[in-house]
Amino acid sequence: MTFAQRLAEAQQRFGPICVGADPHESILRDWGLEASPAGLASFCDILIEAFAGQVASTKPQVAFFERYGSAGMAQLERYMQAMREAGTLVIADAKRGDIGSTMAGYAAAWLGDGPLAADAVTLSPYLGVDSLRPAFELAKDNDRGVFVLAVTSNPEGSQVQGSGQPAIAAHIVDELGRWNRELWPGMTGSVGAVIGATAEARLASWGVDIDVLCGTVLAPGVGAQGAKVDQALRVGGANVTCIPLSRAILQAGPRISDMRQVWHVWSFAKDGA
Amino acid sequence: MTFAQRLAEAQQRFGPICVGADPHESILRDWGLEASPAGLASFCDILIEAFAGQVASTKPQVAFFERYGSAGMAQLERYMQAMREAGTLVIADAKRGDIGSTMAGYAAAWLGDGPLAADAVTLSPYLGVDSLRPAFELAKDNDRGVFVLAVTSNPEGSQVQGSGQPAIAAHIVDELGRWNRELWPGMTGSVGAVIGATAEARLASWGVDIDVLCGTVLAPGVGAQGAKVDQALRVGGANVTCIPLSRAILQAGPRISDMRQVWHVWSFAKDGA
Repeated sequence: MTFAQRLAEAQQRFGPICVGADPHESILRDWGLEASPAGLASFCDILIEAFAGQVASTKPQVAFFERYGSAGMAQLERYMQAMREAGTLVIADAKRGDIGSTMAGYAAAWLGDGPLAADAVTLSPYLGVDSLRPAFELAKDNDRGVFVLAVTSNPEGSQVQGSGQPAIAAHIVDELGRWNRELWPGMTGSVGAVIGATAEARLASWGVDIDVLCGTVLAPGVGAQGAKVDQALRVGGANVTCIPLSRAILQAGPRISDMRQVWHVWSFAKDGA
Repeated sequence: MTFAQRLAEAQQRFGPICVGADPHESILRDWGLEASPAGLASFCDILIEAFAGQVASTKPQVAFFERYGSAGMAQLERYMQAMREAGTLVIADAKRGDIGSTMAGYAAAWLGDGPLAADAVTLSPYLGVDSLRPAFELAKDNDRGVFVLAVTSNPEGSQVQGSGQPAIAAHIVDELGRWNRELWPGMTGSVGAVIGATAEARLASWGVDIDVLCGTVLAPGVGAQGAKVDQALRVGGANVTCIPLSRAILQAGPRISDMRQVWHVWSFAKDGA
């Protein structure tokens, strides 16, 4: 099964909410944990106990592991392996992007079978969508996925993304759709786009037609950043749309039942939470 | 001393060539090493013996370490620490970029005092130049530097970088210059730009005035990719320009004297090698 199929199936069962694993210092402190690799280990253990096999997907934010160096990355590996073994899809939020053999190196790291193997990885397209080709092709070969930054909701994002005619963001979504049609003809592709859940107005004013993607969408910005679930689903259009939720869940921790409760409310909020 | 000052001083002594540490599989194989963390360790040992304290700077390509997971990152840490202790500046080629507290996490990883501490790190601006603010500010506080992708020489790069009026790339260089004037008024700033050494025509046609940067330039593309040293110095304009050279040096390895010889020829090539 392709990544897009696995994501769609998992979300049918568990809903679209993806558990964001963002161990920033303030969360570690609130949970009574050290800002250290040992603190990360406890943080991961708690999330694994709370959610492994119980949710469609989880999105670890790589920066918060990388800041502790290789010891932090070792905790990330352990977290990703435990979640994947339990059947929960892992989307590594790494925002990598480079060219040529270097890009192939990143693709091998996250979409290969090494210790950092994830189900999908986020990518950044400043070097051009086609520079990410090694990741698209490895995703195809290994039934994994990618999510490429397209329209983000941070105010500074429009400087780059909204520039040009057509806007860069529209161009990027078009190109990603082209890759999906080429690699997964006649089906939902596993090349996805990152579209901020609060970016509906930007999509319209920049002429972004998200339905040409024929793939998957990752729509951050729900919860602490102000967006509702129905907004996120709208920016995802006809694509398989995955909605990361981090702070709202983690702030309910470290008690497992409280975090599960928050996840449940958001995941099955038919009224848009 | 600021990063820009340290780089300028080191390059006055050793020349502008930065030793690229790119342990891709083909190099490891050519050197008779395994494509594994153990192979990386030997690769690093050889480069440390050849160049620590003998060159202005070195640029490890993070992807080629990351692809082996935390065990690969541990070798990167060891390499960076050994080179820095010997007085060689380390530019971590990571091309990171994110927003808010996540960007602060990446800044802390590479420009803080943890195990991945570098003298400078490369960044990617798809989320807007100002989204990189936590890295600029930490660079200022800790006397480190950054190099932000601006004009690259890969063909796919122009899709994004050349779009808009003014072109995205020109806008980015202007913004980086503004940050330099704000954080390091009246002196050369430590916010740098990545400008491909073969991108001279792009600079002109996109209206990029590199001299407004008042900072540092990293100009890849020399050697195997076809550019000469004098081209790289031209795209850097009035800035302190650092020229990474990887394949040409590594292909002369693993014999230390042969690699040193190649470095020497390129570093003091007054005729543009």
